[in-house]
Amino acid sequence: MKIVTASEFELRRDVDYGTPEQNAAVREIVAGVKKEGDAALFRYTERFDGVRLDAGGIRVTEVELKAAYEEVEPSFVKAIRGAADNIRTFHARQKRNSWMDLQPDGSVLGQIIRPLQRVGVYVPGGKAAYPSSVLMNVIPAQIAGVPEIVMVTPPATGGREGIDPYILVAAAEAGVSEIYRIGGAQAIAALAYGTELVPPVDKICGPGNIYVALAKREVYGAVDIDSIAGPSEIVVLADDTAEPAYVAADLLSQAEHDEMASALLVTPSQRLADQVAAEVERQLAALPREPIARASVEAYGAIIVTGSLEEGIAVVNRLAPEHLEIVTRDPMGLTGAIRNAGAIFLGPYSSEPVGDYWAGPNHIIPTNGTARFSSPVDVDDFIKKSSLIYYSREALLQNGAAIMELARREGLEGHARAIEIRLEREAKGETSHGE
Amino acid sequence: MKIVTASEFELRRDVDYGTPEQNAAVREIVAGVKKEGDAALFRYTERFDGVRLDAGGIRVTEVELKAAYEEVEPSFVKAIRGAADNIRTFHARQKRNSWMDLQPDGSVLGQIIRPLQRVGVYVPGGKAAYPSSVLMNVIPAQIAGVPEIVMVTPPATGGREGIDPYILVAAAEAGVSEIYRIGGAQAIAALAYGTELVPPVDKICGPGNIYVALAKREVYGAVDIDSIAGPSEIVVLADDTAEPAYVAADLLSQAEHDEMASALLVTPSQRLADQVAAEVERQLAALPREPIARASVEAYGAIIVTGSLEEGIAVVNRLAPEHLEIVTRDPMGLTGAIRNAGAIFLGPYSSEPVGDYWAGPNHIIPTNGTARFSSPVDVDDFIKKSSLIYYSREALLQNGAAIMELARREGLEGHARAIEIRLEREAKGETSHGE
Repeated sequence: MKIVTASEFELRRDVDYGTPEQNAAVREIVAGVKKEGDAALFRYTERFDGVRLDAGGIRVTEVELKAAYEEVEPSFVKAIRGAADNIRTFHARQKRNSWMDLQPDGSVLGQIIRPLQRVGVYVPGGKAAYPSSVLMNVIPAQIAGVPEIVMVTPPATGGREGIDPYILVAAAEAGVSEIYRIGGAQAIAALAYGTELVPPVDKICGPGNIYVALAKREVYGAVDIDSIAGPSEIVVLADDTAEPAYVAADLLSQAEHDEMASALLVTPSQRLADQVAAEVERQLAALPREPIARASVEAYGAIIVTGSLEEGIAVVNRLAPEHLEIVTRDPMGLTGAIRNAGAIFLGPYSSEPVGDYWAGPNHIIPTNGTARFSSPVDVDDFIKKSSLIYYSREALLQNGAAIMELARREGLEGHARAIEIRLEREAKGETSHGE
Repeated sequence: MKIVTASEFELRRDVDYGTPEQNAAVREIVAGVKKEGDAALFRYTERFDGVRLDAGGIRVTEVELKAAYEEVEPSFVKAIRGAADNIRTFHARQKRNSWMDLQPDGSVLGQIIRPLQRVGVYVPGGKAAYPSSVLMNVIPAQIAGVPEIVMVTPPATGGREGIDPYILVAAAEAGVSEIYRIGGAQAIAALAYGTELVPPVDKICGPGNIYVALAKREVYGAVDIDSIAGPSEIVVLADDTAEPAYVAADLLSQAEHDEMASALLVTPSQRLADQVAAEVERQLAALPREPIARASVEAYGAIIVTGSLEEGIAVVNRLAPEHLEIVTRDPMGLTGAIRNAGAIFLGPYSSEPVGDYWAGPNHIIPTNGTARFSSPVDVDDFIKKSSLIYYSREALLQNGAAIMELARREGLEGHARAIEIRLEREAKGETSHGE
């Protein structure tokens, strides 16, 4: 792992926006499903997944969901239940109430908070099918109160028919029972616009390949989407109290995700830098996903040695990392200085996988420096707010003149007249309501 | 205004995505400013606004801000202060605290809530320069705690040099003092990427013409943006207790915005439908912006007569209007049945302009049916959240096995090892930290 100073370090972040061919293909698929519904959905599924769907087979049955439990180890079921419990507990704390502010003049102002009605969760097939991501997408929506949560996932996973039983168990544990055997851009289009068999949703979330990502961008506006994730990142900010073997293991747990993942250590300690570099080499050699992790470390990894811990903090704030571990003498004491980070892991025992799988906070976190302005997935992503204005007669009589002044200043006479006609008629006592 | 039944009614919503030429022009401008900075910014300002900027003149001075007060009426200053007070009071109630959950095993989980660092507000020139919109964009950011709020607005407004004094007074009252005399796609690019004279922001909000809208879409990802507003809409849900003249005035206050604005009345009362139709004609004839309002009413307006109030509510939920007025016997009693609406105005005195200018809730509200999944602008739009995980040694020892189980199930051995190395070393008491 290369060791550099803060001024030598050059951040490299690559984002895949798809080739023109991929973009054109996605636009065609989305338009096809929007226009032709199930006919197009079946056609594309046969073309891309090699599976002939029909009306009877598109939806996963209760029997299949139950059967999945027979195919997985009891220890997995226990672990996924423990994770789901923790995720529920953490997200339940985010739930907010509608509120009202009752004014002395009898007016009521407020915000109504309601769940979205219907949410679709995309779960990729193959090796990228992560049961943990099912929980992280579904549970916040559930806590928000979304009454209809549906899942889509490609019909052929890992080279065999049917859906990964671990995914099905995670879905069942999360409480999802409406699951469609569709994937790719065609599944996103079906969720966005609806087909005869797949009712449309209000929001689509969940990760996917480049076709899925492009399709989500394409349908955005007709429905909401979650953010489109870039490669995963970790920054470890550490001083000489950190255990080099732990730091190295955490960096590699990020690097093994994919070749474009980014693992950085920021430290004022040259000694720690040297030790971690050696540990990374040692641990890398024994890692099953060594080729991926090595490619990531070489292209996107670095150990940045700073002149001080303060300079390290400045580097972290510039990077705005998805995951930040602070492994220093007093990690909580530094938290206030961290302006930009998606998730902050404090101390030697808060290894990133603790958050990826277990502790409760969401593992879907802003990548690519967007922690500057965005947030991990939470209950807020599945609610919408409506303003509430109940204005009393007294309030209108008292404030009408100022409202008209502002409307006329903006050249909107019609706005002013909507107030004026009320003031005039109320003065004359002409209307049937009144007090 | 045409009167139709719910089944006859066809919703028409048109959104302007720009011509290919406009899209290409915007991409070129954005790329130019990103690459060349101020040189390109000055060049485009001269080309599109006909104004030669220089380093000394790009920023509005304190002297100009003070001078603006001499050009506006004291009644305007008083009104804008009253509106700002109300908007502040309402938005202050939305402010949330960071929180922590302290677990029995010594772990701490939480969410840190912080303001964005720097926000840019676009204010259009000419007749679309609305002082009220300055307040609605700036005040929520201020309440969120954003330390740097900047404004941009085109240099030549209403055919004269300089910026509309009403806009400057609104900015000053809202507390903005960093104002740049730039507009169009070039201003958006400057805010997103920064130039020598204009530091980059984390989020850009505020309305603009098609070039501004396209530029915001173009820079999204590098910075956050607010939603891109479609034409404004109102739906009035009323029964026979409603005053026809008030309903008509409120419909027209929406219709006068622009030819694509949409004003709809939904009512089970044929009598009210007929009376409102007649009132609309009567009031329309006397409206200064009559041609605009009439075009809107004819193309996008309608009175929908439903079989019942319940059917009316179902129509409203399908429309998911930006503004909803409920003018019925017991408007508050219907609020629970409204699933989708950006802002809900209750009763005969809650005319839409009350919310547009005065009451306190934001007037930037989801258009185009997006109230199904999005919300009026509020303090949440200017904060970001970070998850906090401080895991204790005890918690890791107790939960490590389950975390490893889940990681290995997903084929991420490196994740499992980051936990395993800690469990092994802690068992041996090998590390320097520990309890």
